[in-house]
Amino acid sequence: MKRRTFLATSIASGAALGMGAESRSAEKADKPEKAPYKRISCEEAFSTPEIVAELKRVAGGVPSMSSGPIAGPFMPALLDIGEGRIQTMDRDGVDIQVLSLTSPGVQNFDPATAVSLMRATNDRLAEAIRKYPARFAGLAVIAPQDPVASAKELERAVESLGIKGGIINSHTRGEYLDDPKFWPIFEAAQALNVPIYIHPREPSSGLASELTMPGFTVGWGFGVETGSHALRLIASGVFDKYPMLRIVLGHMGETLPFVIDRIDNRFQWESKLFGKPKIERLPSEYLKNNFVVTTSGMNYRAPLMATIAQIGVDRVMFAADYPMEVQADAVREMEAMPLSMQDKWKVWETNARKVFAI
Amino acid sequence: MKRRTFLATSIASGAALGMGAESRSAEKADKPEKAPYKRISCEEAFSTPEIVAELKRVAGGVPSMSSGPIAGPFMPALLDIGEGRIQTMDRDGVDIQVLSLTSPGVQNFDPATAVSLMRATNDRLAEAIRKYPARFAGLAVIAPQDPVASAKELERAVESLGIKGGIINSHTRGEYLDDPKFWPIFEAAQALNVPIYIHPREPSSGLASELTMPGFTVGWGFGVETGSHALRLIASGVFDKYPMLRIVLGHMGETLPFVIDRIDNRFQWESKLFGKPKIERLPSEYLKNNFVVTTSGMNYRAPLMATIAQIGVDRVMFAADYPMEVQADAVREMEAMPLSMQDKWKVWETNARKVFAI
Repeated sequence: MKRRTFLATSIASGAALGMGAESRSAEKADKPEKAPYKRISCEEAFSTPEIVAELKRVAGGVPSMSSGPIAGPFMPALLDIGEGRIQTMDRDGVDIQVLSLTSPGVQNFDPATAVSLMRATNDRLAEAIRKYPARFAGLAVIAPQDPVASAKELERAVESLGIKGGIINSHTRGEYLDDPKFWPIFEAAQALNVPIYIHPREPSSGLASELTMPGFTVGWGFGVETGSHALRLIASGVFDKYPMLRIVLGHMGETLPFVIDRIDNRFQWESKLFGKPKIERLPSEYLKNNFVVTTSGMNYRAPLMATIAQIGVDRVMFAADYPMEVQADAVREMEAMPLSMQDKWKVWETNARKVFAI
Repeated sequence: MKRRTFLATSIASGAALGMGAESRSAEKADKPEKAPYKRISCEEAFSTPEIVAELKRVAGGVPSMSSGPIAGPFMPALLDIGEGRIQTMDRDGVDIQVLSLTSPGVQNFDPATAVSLMRATNDRLAEAIRKYPARFAGLAVIAPQDPVASAKELERAVESLGIKGGIINSHTRGEYLDDPKFWPIFEAAQALNVPIYIHPREPSSGLASELTMPGFTVGWGFGVETGSHALRLIASGVFDKYPMLRIVLGHMGETLPFVIDRIDNRFQWESKLFGKPKIERLPSEYLKNNFVVTTSGMNYRAPLMATIAQIGVDRVMFAADYPMEVQADAVREMEAMPLSMQDKWKVWETNARKVFAI
């Protein structure tokens, strides 16, 4: 680390936490040890003033769960994809953040606005990456409202802007990606050899009445929404049509690694009795071949070890979910996992380098 | 084992599998080894001709997911709570089954029919237990349509019939147990010091449109339905009102042990932003104090080890989910788990003895 950056970091973090000189040095001692690997963090959110303005407009001035984290205290950190963010990364021991527009992306907007803001936001993202090419990578905004324009934009983002894949925040106005009308996006992703990250958002209206539970909507409802979405994709046959398609799920696979054996078991039984979706393999085979997961918001030991046991350490990548989670805690928690150096290296760095071609 | 039973078992199982003399002895070798503990299996289903008739009548002659397993090939095994079932238990190495009326119980019926069939079925259950007191225990049918009658019936079942607790199959005509109108049932359960088992069923109408996915409805949809129900109970404050209330969840806690850290984390955050349910403790504290889980349909290593790590081995009990699952496989899978003898003893026997006072 250059001396200038080091000083700026110490001052910034000390100031943010209201610390004096003594605590600054204590905090320095807490900093994760230097590691042979780079720490890459795969689900890290940002926003832009234009997106925030349109989210507010659509919400009629009343930010809610469907406006995403703009309802929270995260706005200053979300809007900073420059020096301030780099300083938090230095402070917390994160080498590279893979940036993505915070949930729900442009998916609440009318199609024309969504397409226009998709392009503008990808340009903004590319600009941030150009400024800090060793510290940032990015996932492209997608506007599923217009699948053809989105496929073209994904191509532009990957080929002209150096972006590493795309991100979609679960349903788009109640519609899911198992509908083949959305598949031009997947066709493009496979052709470009880039992954699509399916990120959570609030449950669609069918689910919302039961899963919007004050205090539990994000921890449970968002995960159910997104895990259901992943299973719909498996059931749709999209992975038979695009066998090289790679999907990224956050939050340790949205509980799917925990239940996948039972899903296989009941899939076989239910298929016999009620007719089965026309797919060629067992659900778990798609999970183990077409999906990778990140640890965003789930840097906890038991689910990590279960997930590695179920889908293999080659399919797990670190994420903090900055700024909605405390990045320093996430780093510390992952560093404390009982993994071999080889496995840590994979989870911290090499898996992400392969998946996102970083 | 008595010689007569042993012979009958060998013949029954050999015949069922279409085996000759050689395979019978191979099969004998496969039988789980004699263990110092008794094997108690905690979520084992039965039905009665009266229940089946009413389920068929309500379904208009078209059995579906909402009729429960009567749509499947399980009927003969469900209707047998006598010698035939004992023989499968001997063959598979299960010492005691805790019996419960198969999902959805009486919860689809009009209140008067539900109450009447609740009582009749509990009498039937008690009769089976009286005939095989060393092999069967039972959970009482409950008709949440009439909470007061159900509370009285639970008292009768426990005090007069020797039944060990009650079972409720998630929602009752779309209503959940977080509604205080149902709480007389919980008040009775606490007063009687018996647990309530919350068993899965098909998702309620709000959830159904998204979670009824051919091939995935049971493995995923039923679990989401039931896990959501458990979180609603936590959010309702029922465990602050009845702190000694014990709830049993099947299927390894319906994924809650996997996500509970994240639920705690987001609960604290979401509560700050949007207002929190009026409960006194963190969600995980209720999970670890008021819930026990069984392994029904989830006798798989990674989720078992994660669950033990999260909520402790004292809160995990074996279940096969007979006859919807292959009992012999469930026993073999649990016997193969990398647990100490002491922990095996707990999961197989002593935890169930404590929870159900067997």
